[in-house]
Amino acid sequence: MLPRALAFDVFGTLLDWRTNIAAAFAGSAVSGDPEELADAWRARYRPILEEVNAGSRPWANFDELHLATLEHLLTERAQQLPLEDKRRLVAAWHRLDPWPDAPAGLEALRRDHVTAALSNGHIALLVDLARYGQLRFDALLSAELAGVYKPAAEVYLTAGRLLGVPAQELMLVAAHPWDLQGAREAGLRTAFIERPLEYGPESPPREDADADQSVSSLLELARRLGS
Amino acid sequence: MLPRALAFDVFGTLLDWRTNIAAAFAGSAVSGDPEELADAWRARYRPILEEVNAGSRPWANFDELHLATLEHLLTERAQQLPLEDKRRLVAAWHRLDPWPDAPAGLEALRRDHVTAALSNGHIALLVDLARYGQLRFDALLSAELAGVYKPAAEVYLTAGRLLGVPAQELMLVAAHPWDLQGAREAGLRTAFIERPLEYGPESPPREDADADQSVSSLLELARRLGS
Repeated sequence: MLPRALAFDVFGTLLDWRTNIAAAFAGSAVSGDPEELADAWRARYRPILEEVNAGSRPWANFDELHLATLEHLLTERAQQLPLEDKRRLVAAWHRLDPWPDAPAGLEALRRDHVTAALSNGHIALLVDLARYGQLRFDALLSAELAGVYKPAAEVYLTAGRLLGVPAQELMLVAAHPWDLQGAREAGLRTAFIERPLEYGPESPPREDADADQSVSSLLELARRLGS
Repeated sequence: MLPRALAFDVFGTLLDWRTNIAAAFAGSAVSGDPEELADAWRARYRPILEEVNAGSRPWANFDELHLATLEHLLTERAQQLPLEDKRRLVAAWHRLDPWPDAPAGLEALRRDHVTAALSNGHIALLVDLARYGQLRFDALLSAELAGVYKPAAEVYLTAGRLLGVPAQELMLVAAHPWDLQGAREAGLRTAFIERPLEYGPESPPREDADADQSVSSLLELARRLGS
């Protein structure tokens, strides 16, 4: 059975965060290799979400969490930066270029499916990213609406409830096996998309043997789903 | 100061519910004047929302509330209808034609403003309506996300919070003074749009002397806001 609705992870799946964040570091007073700094910042993403999900850190949105992880990173490296410069780096997460197939791929998939972003990023951030990248969705959904972060089941279940589709008719499209695994545990179908440059040319290879679909672009997914 | 974000009421403001609902009655086994039936069904909308907001009726989405109000209407008129036929009438609320200026007006306003639907209708219903009417928003927001219906302040405040804009930089666009009044009480700016055919050629005249803007089309609003 084909899915009725598709939910898309955003950072890494639709957007190349690394290039823009590295450029933001290159334009800042932070010393070090910009790409390594981008990777090191991003590496603090899942641990801080786990703190929120575990209840050891109060709910905070991505702007707040990015500021916190940036401060950890700078402290660790004994670097100081004015708050205004830190805010400029945090704001760089609001203007990330999509992977080249994303705008047309989303349009193609929207023809025959309800499409929604389903990101850990908050709605206001997703609005900025969708406008900047000219990404069209039917709806923007976020962990913010569930009050807990992916891969907690409640995020995927909230998406199904708000879209009015049973979990088994909702497919998560993502580049990250941990996200897809969370979706499967909540009863969703899953599509793994290869993003071999997410961490630059040296990105570790990924695959997800349990996904219903494994594709290298959104247009390939549209063909597979008969769009 | 110009608003940064615009929130749009949907039923009556962007969509002509009456023509399509009357057509659905005309194609049903319900006896009576289809337009009068559409008006009588719609007249039960605000009272049942007030029951929910007052806590005397549990939260229910528009599909559930439309079914309940249809059943009241039919009972009052001593008419019976199979559940399947009732569901077909409820489903008619998912396919309503926009007012002629709405699609292009939303596009024009989206150029310089973040745009969001802000309806009492649930997200899944808004997805269907936006797809059917080719209405493009940056985000779909709903009373469903606040757990209470307009004109409760929490609905407008939730929209501002999710869009990341202070209430005074968010403008509600609506054809209904009661909705605009609720928005003003929550601190929003307001734009009244004339929809002189909402209740057919005999619609009672409306105005809202307290609105920041009063316009006869979305394109006029776009010109007023400098889009």
